[in-house]
Amino acid sequence: MACPLCAEDGGALVWRGDRLRVIRAQEVGFPAFYRVVWNAHVAEFSDLTAAERAHCMQAVAVVEQALRQHLSPTKINLAALGNMVPHLHWHVIARFDWDSHFPAPVWAAAQRPSPAAREATLHARLPALENGLRLQLAALAAA
Amino acid sequence: MACPLCAEDGGALVWRGDRLRVIRAQEVGFPAFYRVVWNAHVAEFSDLTAAERAHCMQAVAVVEQALRQHLSPTKINLAALGNMVPHLHWHVIARFDWDSHFPAPVWAAAQRPSPAAREATLHARLPALENGLRLQLAALAAA
Repeated sequence: MACPLCAEDGGALVWRGDRLRVIRAQEVGFPAFYRVVWNAHVAEFSDLTAAERAHCMQAVAVVEQALRQHLSPTKINLAALGNMVPHLHWHVIARFDWDSHFPAPVWAAAQRPSPAAREATLHARLPALENGLRLQLAALAAA
Repeated sequence: MACPLCAEDGGALVWRGDRLRVIRAQEVGFPAFYRVVWNAHVAEFSDLTAAERAHCMQAVAVVEQALRQHLSPTKINLAALGNMVPHLHWHVIARFDWDSHFPAPVWAAAQRPSPAAREATLHARLPALENGLRLQLAALAAA
């Protein structure tokens, strides 16, 4: 069975470099849910070399900082799971105390409806956030 | 309200260094569930300096590699959530295709009972795993 993260971007492409790409997840009810996807097919974080791991986590930190700066979330959630798609990808999720699952993980049962107006307010901030991200990720790749 | 990860180890202490500690989680139904806890109270991964983040993730990779080497899991799950306890801690979880939740995240609903015999087999391997971990974490801290 073909790996979906080898076959496709895996979401709305924000930026792509030689080693990794950043996409916005589109299939879930969280407006600020990004993924850092390692381009090469490796299953586990420790399949990367130490230098690759450091680079990967610098990109994760860049995305986290952009979410904090632009959206002031209650909390950031980071995760590399891959049980369904064992191709290394880091979930970087801005969480809010009003979101549908907070304080539970996004993979648990929803606790309340997601307020559409607040989601729309966040969504309007994503273009500026993503423009900033592209600049920072390009700078990181060139460093 | 006092932070529980400032007040206590947060689980069975495996190793403690100046910057971080590793504990085995005891409150969940997964036999190989560890946490890398940053000793100082910071909420987010990006509250650390770049050097601190690199050190933290090297420790996460050491734990991941020990789990892979000793237990040959189906997958490793890594996560830093902290919605309930906003003190930086990394979950490092060995997942097996027979475990109670696989392939769902451990925070989703259980899919089947957890097989006690298989859990016991894993549990018997943890002392050797943790002895190895202590040596490697000490070496990392001294590097």
